[in-house]
Amino acid sequence: MKYPNGIQKEYKILTSHANRGMTLEEDLNVTNEYYRESDIAIIYKKPTPITIHKVDYVSRKDAIIKDARFTIPSTTDYNGIYQGKYIDFEAKETAHKTSFPLSNIHEHQIVHLRRIIKHGGIGFLIVRFTSYDETYLLKGEDFFRFIDQEKRKSIPRTYFQKYGIAIPLGLRPRLDYLKFIEVKNETKN
Amino acid sequence: MKYPNGIQKEYKILTSHANRGMTLEEDLNVTNEYYRESDIAIIYKKPTPITIHKVDYVSRKDAIIKDARFTIPSTTDYNGIYQGKYIDFEAKETAHKTSFPLSNIHEHQIVHLRRIIKHGGIGFLIVRFTSYDETYLLKGEDFFRFIDQEKRKSIPRTYFQKYGIAIPLGLRPRLDYLKFIEVKNETKN
Repeated sequence: MKYPNGIQKEYKILTSHANRGMTLEEDLNVTNEYYRESDIAIIYKKPTPITIHKVDYVSRKDAIIKDARFTIPSTTDYNGIYQGKYIDFEAKETAHKTSFPLSNIHEHQIVHLRRIIKHGGIGFLIVRFTSYDETYLLKGEDFFRFIDQEKRKSIPRTYFQKYGIAIPLGLRPRLDYLKFIEVKNETKN
Repeated sequence: MKYPNGIQKEYKILTSHANRGMTLEEDLNVTNEYYRESDIAIIYKKPTPITIHKVDYVSRKDAIIKDARFTIPSTTDYNGIYQGKYIDFEAKETAHKTSFPLSNIHEHQIVHLRRIIKHGGIGFLIVRFTSYDETYLLKGEDFFRFIDQEKRKSIPRTYFQKYGIAIPLGLRPRLDYLKFIEVKNETKN
């Protein structure tokens, strides 16, 4: 897939990493499925936003989209509920070795994450450095501290090592990111 | 747009109701925009889920989807956060005069709504009877009581009148459904 701003150039390179097991998206999909089946959390990836220009109605029950474009997402890709709390995050892979380019996250998505946290939700990033097979959870507050204080257009890997949480790969669940989410909640379910 | 199970036959009829102002989806879009701008709630409609079979990469920055199909959604269409609480709902219009056919709601979506409520989220339906221009909010518990106790394949309009809440149309916000949502929450924001 390919977004208007060129993000997908990197995405395409990444998904061809045949030496690595699954992509971050695949890891998250199976993890979220595990969470749902185990009744731990209800979290889904949102469908890819597109604008449809032409649909062929082959029959009353079959429609084929013949012309559509990818559109820039207004929100992050993942959201749901965990321990009664609203959860919201964006997940990205990068093949860069020393830093994570901020061009991977749309301005809309940053605004969205800020709003979520302001409204009492839990917002964060999950970033994978594919060269090292390292996956970090970076809490919203740590992400915003960086972009509010730094002028750099990429977050150094060392920043993730210092402020992020390394999520180990497991079997079931594959990528147990919720383990590292603290729910400050008087009304636990 | 057209889903595999024929739901869209009805949808197509509905969107051609030129005598009525906006569709329910349009009303909800402007309402959710108002909620976001006024910092009341962060609620979005999810993109329509599709499966992409063929993409033409016209240039490095432009991709055209040439073959794709609509897929059955796993979740409801709308979710977000309101007063620190996870909100989740499905919205449907019907041109039927006496009842709302349950075939409008996928089995997956019912399972999803049950899970959301079990996990402490707020789940409901918004149903519009276009013939009367009536829009009802039906809380998850009232929806499930019907489908658990009744064998009927449609919910009578009288059930909405008795257990639902009629949402009046306004100017700003257009369809103030959150007004009727009680947030039982010790940690109000």
